[in-house]
Amino acid sequence: MQLMTDNKAQQYGVTPQSVDFNDWYNEVVKKADLADNSPVAGAMVIKPYGSALWERIVRWLDDRFKATNHESLVFPTLIPMSFIMKEADHVEGFAPELFTVNKIGTEVLAEPYVMRPTSETIIGHMWSQWLNSYRDLPFLHYQWGSVFRAELRTKAFLRTSEFYWHEGHTAHASEAEAQAEVRMILDLYHEFCRDVLALPVVRGEKTASERFAGATATYSIEGMMRDGKALQAGTSHYLGQKFSKAFNVKFQTRDQKEDFAYTTSWAISSRIIGAIIMTHGDDKGLMMPPNIAPIQVVIIPVGRKDNFDQMVEEAEKLASELRAQGVRVKVDKRDGVTNGFKYNDWELKGIPVRLELGPRDLEQGVVVVKNRTSDDKETLPRAEAVSGIQARLDGVQASLLQRATDFMLENTVTVDTYEEFKAAIEDGKWVRAFHCGDAESEKAIKDDTKATVRNIPLDDAEFFAEREEGVCVHTGKPAAYGKRVIFGRQY
Amino acid sequence: MQLMTDNKAQQYGVTPQSVDFNDWYNEVVKKADLADNSPVAGAMVIKPYGSALWERIVRWLDDRFKATNHESLVFPTLIPMSFIMKEADHVEGFAPELFTVNKIGTEVLAEPYVMRPTSETIIGHMWSQWLNSYRDLPFLHYQWGSVFRAELRTKAFLRTSEFYWHEGHTAHASEAEAQAEVRMILDLYHEFCRDVLALPVVRGEKTASERFAGATATYSIEGMMRDGKALQAGTSHYLGQKFSKAFNVKFQTRDQKEDFAYTTSWAISSRIIGAIIMTHGDDKGLMMPPNIAPIQVVIIPVGRKDNFDQMVEEAEKLASELRAQGVRVKVDKRDGVTNGFKYNDWELKGIPVRLELGPRDLEQGVVVVKNRTSDDKETLPRAEAVSGIQARLDGVQASLLQRATDFMLENTVTVDTYEEFKAAIEDGKWVRAFHCGDAESEKAIKDDTKATVRNIPLDDAEFFAEREEGVCVHTGKPAAYGKRVIFGRQY
Repeated sequence: MQLMTDNKAQQYGVTPQSVDFNDWYNEVVKKADLADNSPVAGAMVIKPYGSALWERIVRWLDDRFKATNHESLVFPTLIPMSFIMKEADHVEGFAPELFTVNKIGTEVLAEPYVMRPTSETIIGHMWSQWLNSYRDLPFLHYQWGSVFRAELRTKAFLRTSEFYWHEGHTAHASEAEAQAEVRMILDLYHEFCRDVLALPVVRGEKTASERFAGATATYSIEGMMRDGKALQAGTSHYLGQKFSKAFNVKFQTRDQKEDFAYTTSWAISSRIIGAIIMTHGDDKGLMMPPNIAPIQVVIIPVGRKDNFDQMVEEAEKLASELRAQGVRVKVDKRDGVTNGFKYNDWELKGIPVRLELGPRDLEQGVVVVKNRTSDDKETLPRAEAVSGIQARLDGVQASLLQRATDFMLENTVTVDTYEEFKAAIEDGKWVRAFHCGDAESEKAIKDDTKATVRNIPLDDAEFFAEREEGVCVHTGKPAAYGKRVIFGRQY
Repeated sequence: MQLMTDNKAQQYGVTPQSVDFNDWYNEVVKKADLADNSPVAGAMVIKPYGSALWERIVRWLDDRFKATNHESLVFPTLIPMSFIMKEADHVEGFAPELFTVNKIGTEVLAEPYVMRPTSETIIGHMWSQWLNSYRDLPFLHYQWGSVFRAELRTKAFLRTSEFYWHEGHTAHASEAEAQAEVRMILDLYHEFCRDVLALPVVRGEKTASERFAGATATYSIEGMMRDGKALQAGTSHYLGQKFSKAFNVKFQTRDQKEDFAYTTSWAISSRIIGAIIMTHGDDKGLMMPPNIAPIQVVIIPVGRKDNFDQMVEEAEKLASELRAQGVRVKVDKRDGVTNGFKYNDWELKGIPVRLELGPRDLEQGVVVVKNRTSDDKETLPRAEAVSGIQARLDGVQASLLQRATDFMLENTVTVDTYEEFKAAIEDGKWVRAFHCGDAESEKAIKDDTKATVRNIPLDDAEFFAEREEGVCVHTGKPAAYGKRVIFGRQY
């Protein structure tokens, strides 16, 4: 019996998180059919289930970008090498990661192209041609696409040499307007994570060391994964006039003077799927937040040979009633596999609610309901199986957010000594500590503990926002920022 | 006065089609804000108005792909060079057009990558890992993205070195199933063009000379542009077992044997926007078919200084009533430009219906309606301005399809001698003629007249489908195909 169980675990299950979180992640990605490795170094193939999830993410964000008056554009994938070289911090940040195109057909290029690692430079170049007057501003642009950055150690969704995202790029007539845009987008990201993905995140500013290459200020949302590591789930950058000066993006002001535009950029990428997996998953596999789940409800017709077809028919009837209510439903009609296999398979894929429908249930006028977040089953009168499902989906959504929030708060410790700091980091926790703000100290801490400042929580952030004064946990100098910052190891 | 008119034409208008169709096209693309040139050779930037149009095209097709059980995936942009080399016809077809990546960061690659010119090869490679049994089939996959093919003479939307499309790729257990898929998609494309874009197209099979590199059979839909040239608006390929053999995509059949999958691929690309422009445009600019137009109705508040704000308010009221009916509306609130400028601007952009609302109209309880396809204005009681708009939009849609169909039929001639053939081609027409099917003859005709066989209309094609027997217009040999084929110059 023990052997069979082991075989079963091997066949259906995944390595428990506690045994090896890394193996758990890789197995979940593969066995839940989210993505596969590709023959291109570091680039993944996103399979239909992962693609359906990404499409839903894109759709939600895209609708919001449009609702906030942003316009989509499509810029080329290639960028002249000389463009990347124009902004000093930018080239330094990206040079080691660039994919270079040196040949088209048989023609060797005098000036190579690079595959965009991000598009500030080429967009700046186009804006310089489109912008004349303050009346033209703001430019509120974004595009969906992929970008290319060489990665040594790759991991599906989290670190891939090609990844998928939107790039928001906006230009404004004043610093204040640009800053407001940066914050508005950060809040939009925060709301998306909390309300749609059930991800609690900390909004905050990055330190100078952790800024985007070329940014004046970088803001991020940071989430805690089940292994205690931080994942930067989205960023919003204030670029000041650095790129507009490098690319001559200038305009005539309202009072007939000339000024350079104040620009921003911002992004959420396919790594957000990594955040969903690692925030909500358990030893059985994924848990998809119902608000984004490609499949919210799976119905398993539980029948024997002689009545299986009838059960499938009943399941389809229920499915179409649910679909009419806007619920995303799948009926598992496979007849070559056991019910136990199906249960495990759909739990691995994280389907929020499972309905089982067998001959006895039909006789008794009930269906069996199982939430992915709970071990218990309940029976529901068939008459309530449609009206009752949305409440169960909402319940799963709420419990995922609660569980993740509790986990983040429980695994974040406030420390005042460097000994406590190191012990907590070693223990896989986030640390709230005072820091002097010196880049050298940040580097020393990183070398010592692999922990970095995730961000400096904003005053109106949902978590860890309190203003406090103190001395640096590392150097003993007066603390910067007027508050504790969050340190952690990161993805 | 003459001078002023000329200036106006220069400032607002475009070169008439009859003067220079090529200039007309390029000016419309640029002045209507569809796209701009980029600093990347041959690659365009799609601007918000063009992007909104493309997004609507994507959305419609994507919904249909999902409704016909296709699943989206995301494959890498790069392909190992060796993959492209595996299928002989494929490498021969694409080698001259490939973008080569030779370096990542500072590392020079032993085996370079190419930026995908199309993805059959890498998809075949992945399928070989995913496919085991006939139970796994069919694979009904597609992806949205861009591809890269070097072009010597580029033209926005029509021929760009990076273009945007979906790639459909499917694998089946039998030839019959794969052939049915190829035809189903061709019909879907045909329906999309006719009912959504108001483009009459001829469904047909390509001759061997004009097949996709590696295909066993290629089917196309061909439309006629206002200069008489043909544009291939979409293609659907039966690939047989060529790619599955090259990439070892095999499966266990129902009767326990082994077979290679029967595969297909198909695409509509951003060049369809070129087809919309060149099928429907006139000397004033674009005409957007209402069913796909990003903006269906523009409302111009016609006021003087003292009542402009009130007119804007009335226009906004009307706009929100229209929006509530699902109409896509824009109110032109610009106050620094004349009404005449606005009229020209929106006609250039091809907005199907314009509403004008002035103080006198308000007093009389009417709005002025102007369809893009007609020179007349009408007045409509304000009370009917909402209920009456859909009929006008439907009218514009129908009249665009009718106009384009009439044009295509009027400019297609049936000939039986090579002299007539050459004269008609020189005259910018399509020619229906018998052909022997010899590739050498096709090449000679092309060298002689720049005309190629656009396609061999299918028996159930809407246009030019009649079965007939005859002798080749070029060689005098017995005609192939059992019908006349369509010759024309092409984009």
